[in-house]
Amino acid sequence: MAGKSIQDLLTPALTVDLLKVKRNAQVMLERFQKLGVQLRPHMKTHKTLECADIMTAGTRRCIVVSTLAEASFYADHGYDDILYAYPLPFDKVERCAELSERLTLFHVLVDNSAALEELKKRPLKRGKLWHVWLKLDCANGRAGVPHSEPAALQLAQAISESPGVELTGIYTHCGNTYSCSGEEEIRAVAQDTTTFTLQFMEKLQANGINCSKSSIGSTPSCSQPVPDMAMLSEVHPGNYVFYDVQQSMIGSCKLEDVAVRVITRVVGHYPHRNQMLVDCGWAGLSLDSGGRLPTGYAVIEGHPDLKLLSMTQEHGRVEPISGKLDYEKFPLGSLLSLIPYHACATAVMHPVYFVHSDGVVVDTWTPTRGW
Amino acid sequence: MAGKSIQDLLTPALTVDLLKVKRNAQVMLERFQKLGVQLRPHMKTHKTLECADIMTAGTRRCIVVSTLAEASFYADHGYDDILYAYPLPFDKVERCAELSERLTLFHVLVDNSAALEELKKRPLKRGKLWHVWLKLDCANGRAGVPHSEPAALQLAQAISESPGVELTGIYTHCGNTYSCSGEEEIRAVAQDTTTFTLQFMEKLQANGINCSKSSIGSTPSCSQPVPDMAMLSEVHPGNYVFYDVQQSMIGSCKLEDVAVRVITRVVGHYPHRNQMLVDCGWAGLSLDSGGRLPTGYAVIEGHPDLKLLSMTQEHGRVEPISGKLDYEKFPLGSLLSLIPYHACATAVMHPVYFVHSDGVVVDTWTPTRGW
Repeated sequence: MAGKSIQDLLTPALTVDLLKVKRNAQVMLERFQKLGVQLRPHMKTHKTLECADIMTAGTRRCIVVSTLAEASFYADHGYDDILYAYPLPFDKVERCAELSERLTLFHVLVDNSAALEELKKRPLKRGKLWHVWLKLDCANGRAGVPHSEPAALQLAQAISESPGVELTGIYTHCGNTYSCSGEEEIRAVAQDTTTFTLQFMEKLQANGINCSKSSIGSTPSCSQPVPDMAMLSEVHPGNYVFYDVQQSMIGSCKLEDVAVRVITRVVGHYPHRNQMLVDCGWAGLSLDSGGRLPTGYAVIEGHPDLKLLSMTQEHGRVEPISGKLDYEKFPLGSLLSLIPYHACATAVMHPVYFVHSDGVVVDTWTPTRGW
Repeated sequence: MAGKSIQDLLTPALTVDLLKVKRNAQVMLERFQKLGVQLRPHMKTHKTLECADIMTAGTRRCIVVSTLAEASFYADHGYDDILYAYPLPFDKVERCAELSERLTLFHVLVDNSAALEELKKRPLKRGKLWHVWLKLDCANGRAGVPHSEPAALQLAQAISESPGVELTGIYTHCGNTYSCSGEEEIRAVAQDTTTFTLQFMEKLQANGINCSKSSIGSTPSCSQPVPDMAMLSEVHPGNYVFYDVQQSMIGSCKLEDVAVRVITRVVGHYPHRNQMLVDCGWAGLSLDSGGRLPTGYAVIEGHPDLKLLSMTQEHGRVEPISGKLDYEKFPLGSLLSLIPYHACATAVMHPVYFVHSDGVVVDTWTPTRGW
C-alpha cells in the first residue's frame, strides 16, 4: 500500500493528510504550552494509535476517550493517564475498576450521586483511589450538573468525602460552541465556560473541598481560546487533529486546515436528470449535516459548483448547483474528493484510513470500534 | 457470551431476535417459492455469514452484494452465484475478473458502454464469460438506463454481441417503493416496475437478443408482491430479514416483525430540562430518519410517550413527547430498547451483533466492513 498514489486507491477511501495532521496537532500543543495549560487530547475522532502518538507528541500519556473500547485499546498499547469522559455507565464499573487498578492513572466521570455509590460499592484493590472528575454543565445542556445548582457543590463534597475516592478534577464540555458562527461568538462561549468553571473551583476552595484540576474543551473553544483559559489546568479538544467543514463554518479553522477526505469515484452518468453517481453513500460519509450545506452533504474539493444532493447506502447523487452538468469534466472512473462535514462521523464509517504525504500513501491506520 | 441475558450486555448493543429473523427469511422464501420465482437475497443489511445462511436456507448460493468486500467475504466462505449489484466501478475490474475466474458464477452489473469496454479489455481466463446484468431504471432515478430510452436496448445489444461477455439478466431496483405509504402504493410501484421490466424482456426477444433472466427488488415490493412478479426469474430484497420502523411505516411489515434493537442504558437524569441521557448516540444508531419520527430518531419499545430527541456521538437525549418525565420509571442504569428507523444504517455501526432467542444470547455475528 505504501508508495501508492491516493489516486489509485479503491474507493470510497478515507484519506488523511499526514502533514496537516501533524501541523494541526503541533499548533494545539504549542498554543497550550504557551498558556501553561496541559493539553489532554480527545481520541474519539480517529481512535487510532498513530494519531494518538502525534497528538500526545509521543508521550502516550494524558488522553481523553469516549468509550471503554477506546480506553482498553489505548491501555493495551502502553497508554496511561486516560480519562474516560463519559457519565459513568453502571454496566462498566467493573471494567473501569480493572483499568484503574492496572494503570497509574485512570479517570472516571460522574454527574450524579448514584454513580458515586456504584464506585463506593467497588473499592479498588491495593489501596488505590478512584480518580473522579465531576462533570459540570456550563450551559451546554448535555451531561453534567448545572454549575449554578447547589447540587453541583453537594456532589463535589460527597465525592471528596467518600472513602476510596478522590475528587481529581472538574470537567466541562462546551459543546455549545458548535452553534457559534465566527471567532467572536466562540470566544464568548469559551469565556463563559471558563468563568463558570473557575468560579466553581473557587467555590470548592471556599468550602474546603480539595480538587486540583479543571478542564474545559471542544475544538472551537481550544482553537480560539481566551486568555482566562490560562487559569485552567487542562483542555481536552479532539476533532482539531482532522478538522472538517463544520469546524471551518464555526470559525475553528480554515477549510485548508481540514486533513481528511473521502475519495470517491464517478460510477454513472445520467444526463436525462442532469446528475452523476459516485461510489460514496452514507456508508462512506455518514448522514451528518442532513444535506443542508449549499453543496449538500459535503464540500466537493475544487468543484464549488457541485452538490452532493442525496445518498443511499453506497451511492451518492451529484448534480450542479445550477446549469448543465459538464460530463466531459467528470468521466466515468474519475475521482472526486469529498471534504467531510463532520470528520468524527465520517471516520467512524471506515475500517482503515489511508495516510498520505503529498498524495502518496505512507501508512494505513486502523481505528478501534465498538464500546 | 452465549447464555447471557441481553439485559446484561454492555451497552449500546445491537441485538438480533433469531426467531424473527428465521421467520422473516422463511416467509420470503416460501412466498417466492409459491410464485416460482428464485429468491436472490441481498446481503447489504447484515453482511454476516450466519444471516446469509438463514436467508439462503443453507444453500450458500444465489445472493446479491453491494460491495466488493462483501463479495470477497462470501466467496472466501464457500458462497457462489454472487451478483455484485453495483454499477461496475472501474477500479475494481481486476478483482471482479478474479472472482469471475474463481467462482462458478460471479455476476457484474453495467449501465453504460464504457463499463462494457472495461470488461472487454480484461477477457477472463480459460474461456470463461463475464456474466453481465444490465441495470434498468424503471422510474427509481438512481443507477440504470431508463427503460424507455433507446440506449437501454442498444446497450443490451452491445453486451450480447461482445466477445467474452454474456448478457445474463436485466436488473431493476425499485427503490421508489421507499416513498410509498401502504400496501396499495407499494403494489402500484411493484406492478409498474414488473411491467416495465417484462416489456423490456419482450423487446429483447423481439430484437433477437438473448437474455435469460430478469430480477426486480426492494423489500417493500417483495413483501407486498403483485401476481405479475411470477413472470420474473428472480427477486432480490435484503432488508426484510431484519425489517425496521421505516419498513413498518411504508407497509412492508408490522412493527412486531422488526428483528433488531439497539439496547441502551440510562446514564443521566436532568430534571431541570425534563430530559434523560442514554448511552446510544449516532455512533450506535446512525442519523437516519433525521429525527423526523414523532418519537425522534427511533421508536423506544414499550414507551410511545418518549422521544429520542437528539444525539451526539455517544449520547442520546430522551424526553417525553408531552408532560413531565417520570424519572422513577427510568432509573439510572436501566435499559431502553430502540427499534431502529433504518436497520441497514444501524447495523453498519456495529462491529458485532448479539443474537438472542427470547432474550437469551445464543450467538454473536460479526459482519464484514469496508469496500
